Amino acid sequence: MHKNPEILLIGTGAVGAFYGGKLSQSGARVSVLCRSDYDVVRSNGIKIKSIYGDFHFSPAEVINKISNYSKRPDYIIVATKVLPEINIPEIIKEGVHPATSIVMLQNGIDIEEKIAQAFPENEIISALAFICATRLEYGLIEHKDYGRIAIGKYPYGISEKVTELANLFSQSGIPCQTHEDIITARWIKLVWNAPFNPISVLGGGVDTKTIMESENALNLVKSVMYEVKMIAERAGHIIPESIIEKNLQDTYSMTPYKTSMLNDFENKRPMEVEAILGNVMRIAEKYSLPIPCIRTLYSLLSLINNKLKR
Amino acid sequence: MHKNPEILLIGTGAVGAFYGGKLSQSGARVSVLCRSDYDVVRSNGIKIKSIYGDFHFSPAEVINKISNYSKRPDYIIVATKVLPEINIPEIIKEGVHPATSIVMLQNGIDIEEKIAQAFPENEIISALAFICATRLEYGLIEHKDYGRIAIGKYPYGISEKVTELANLFSQSGIPCQTHEDIITARWIKLVWNAPFNPISVLGGGVDTKTIMESENALNLVKSVMYEVKMIAERAGHIIPESIIEKNLQDTYSMTPYKTSMLNDFENKRPMEVEAILGNVMRIAEKYSLPIPCIRTLYSLLSLINNKLKR
Repeated sequence: MHKNPEILLIGTGAVGAFYGGKLSQSGARVSVLCRSDYDVVRSNGIKIKSIYGDFHFSPAEVINKISNYSKRPDYIIVATKVLPEINIPEIIKEGVHPATSIVMLQNGIDIEEKIAQAFPENEIISALAFICATRLEYGLIEHKDYGRIAIGKYPYGISEKVTELANLFSQSGIPCQTHEDIITARWIKLVWNAPFNPISVLGGGVDTKTIMESENALNLVKSVMYEVKMIAERAGHIIPESIIEKNLQDTYSMTPYKTSMLNDFENKRPMEVEAILGNVMRIAEKYSLPIPCIRTLYSLLSLINNKLKR
Repeated sequence: MHKNPEILLIGTGAVGAFYGGKLSQSGARVSVLCRSDYDVVRSNGIKIKSIYGDFHFSPAEVINKISNYSKRPDYIIVATKVLPEINIPEIIKEGVHPATSIVMLQNGIDIEEKIAQAFPENEIISALAFICATRLEYGLIEHKDYGRIAIGKYPYGISEKVTELANLFSQSGIPCQTHEDIITARWIKLVWNAPFNPISVLGGGVDTKTIMESENALNLVKSVMYEVKMIAERAGHIIPESIIEKNLQDTYSMTPYKTSMLNDFENKRPMEVEAILGNVMRIAEKYSLPIPCIRTLYSLLSLINNKLKR
C-alpha cells in the first residue's frame, strides 16, 4: 500500500477536523474541502484543543471546490452533516478516481447506499465516531471526551484499505476498531442516538442525566430502543438484548452529556433528523413495522426543523 | 329558584373572569377569590375587551381567602388551572354549604372525581368553555374568538341548578348548551386538545395551520385522536367516528390558532399536562390500553414542566 496516502477530507466541522488532523500526524497527506470556514482555514489552518493533547492541523491543500484539488485521492473522507440540502455525490464526483475509497464518517443509518449507487466501482468504507467535540469557531475545535472510531467496509468485510486506514488512526493515538459487520455496529450506535438525541431537544433542552432521572422519559428511551432493535433485526442486523441494558447502565454512570442534536438546536443549526430517525422510519415502513414512538419524535422534530429553515 | 343567585368564582384568569363577568350582567351576585391579582382586582375590578362588546366586571366581593367571604354561595365556580400544586378541596372547603353546587370550569379529563369525593353531599356541575381568551395583565382580559359554553350535571343528567346556570349564561349573551352526558362532551373536546396542545409546544411553537400543513404532524394528530377515542370508549363514552374528520375539517378552515398550552409555555407558566394527558394515560393504564403516542407526548412535556419548575 501507499506509504503516505493521499486523503481529501470533505467538511471541517469538529469531527472531520479532529480525525483529519490526527491522520495527518501519522504521515498521511490530508487536504480539506471547506465551505463557510474556507478563508479562516486557508489562512490559519485549524487549532484543536484536545484531551489527547492540543495540536495544530495544517492541511496540505485547502480548497473550496473540488476542481481545485491537485491530486488523485486514495481516500475521500466525508465528514459533513447529513442534511437533505447537502448533495454528497455532486460535491465529490470530480474528485473520485477508480482507486479512491470513499469513507462515510457520518451519523445515522442508511447514509452509504446513495453513495454506493453513485460510485458503483468504488470501495465504500463506513466509519463511526464516538467522540464529544465541538467547533467553537471557524478554525478552532474543542475535543472534550471519548474519541474512538470504528470502521469497516460497506456493506460487509474488511479490506486492505480499511486496515491501512485503521493503522493510520492507531498510529496517531486514536483507538480504532475494524468491524466485519460495520452496519450492525451502526445500528447499535443508533440504539443510543435514536432516543437520546431527539428527547434531549424535545424535552426542553435536557442532558442525559435529567432524562435518566425521569421515570417517564426513561420508559420512552427504552421504548425507542426496542423499536430500533426490532427494525434492525428485521433488516438483518441482530442487536443483542444486553445492548439495551448496557447502554442504560453506561448512561447512568457517565458525566451528564449534552447531545449533538441539542447542540445544533441551541445554535439554530438544522438537526440531523433524517439520518437519525427518518431513514430508520422508511426502513420500518418497507417492512410494515409499527414504530409509534420513533414516528412521534420524528414528526415533532420535523416541525422544529421546518421552522428553523424559515 | 333564587332570583339573584349568589356565585363565588375561584380564579380570575381569562376564562373565569370572562364568564364570571358575564354572569354578573345577568343579575347574579358574583364574588371572586383571587391570588396574585388580588390587589389589582380589589382596587379596579376587571376590564374585559371582548368580541361580544367590551365591559367592566365589578365583583360583589373580592377576597384572597375563603374565610373572608360573607355569603353562602349557590354556586362555587372553579376556574383555576388544573395543576398538581393547586388543591381545590382545600381552597374551597370553608365556602361549601349543603346547597352549594360546585361548577368545575376547567380543562381536561377526570377533574371532577376528586371534588365529588371531597364533597359527597354536594351537586357537582361540569362545564366546558370553548373560547379563545387571554389575560393581558392583572385585571385586563382579552376575549378574541369563540365563547360558547357547555354544562351538565356530573356524572350525568341535567338538574334545576344546571338549567338555572344555563339560563343565566344565555341571558348574558353566551351561547350555552346543556348536556345530559357532559363527560362524553368532555372526551370529545379532548379529541382536539390532546393532540393540538402538546404538538403546538413540542413542535417548536407552532400554530394549528403549521401543524395541519405538515403531513407527518397531521398523521400524529390523527394517531393521538384515535388513541383518545379508544380510551374514551373503553371508559364507556362513545365518540362518533365522524368527530375526528369534523375536528380536522374545522381546524383546516379556522384562523391559525395558538393553543392555550403554547401560551402558557411561552410565558413560562406551568402547562396543564396532567389534565390534558396524564389523567387520560392513567385511565388507559387501568384498562391496559397501549397509547404510545400520548405516552411519548406526555413524557416530553413532563420533562419541560419539570425544567420550568426549577
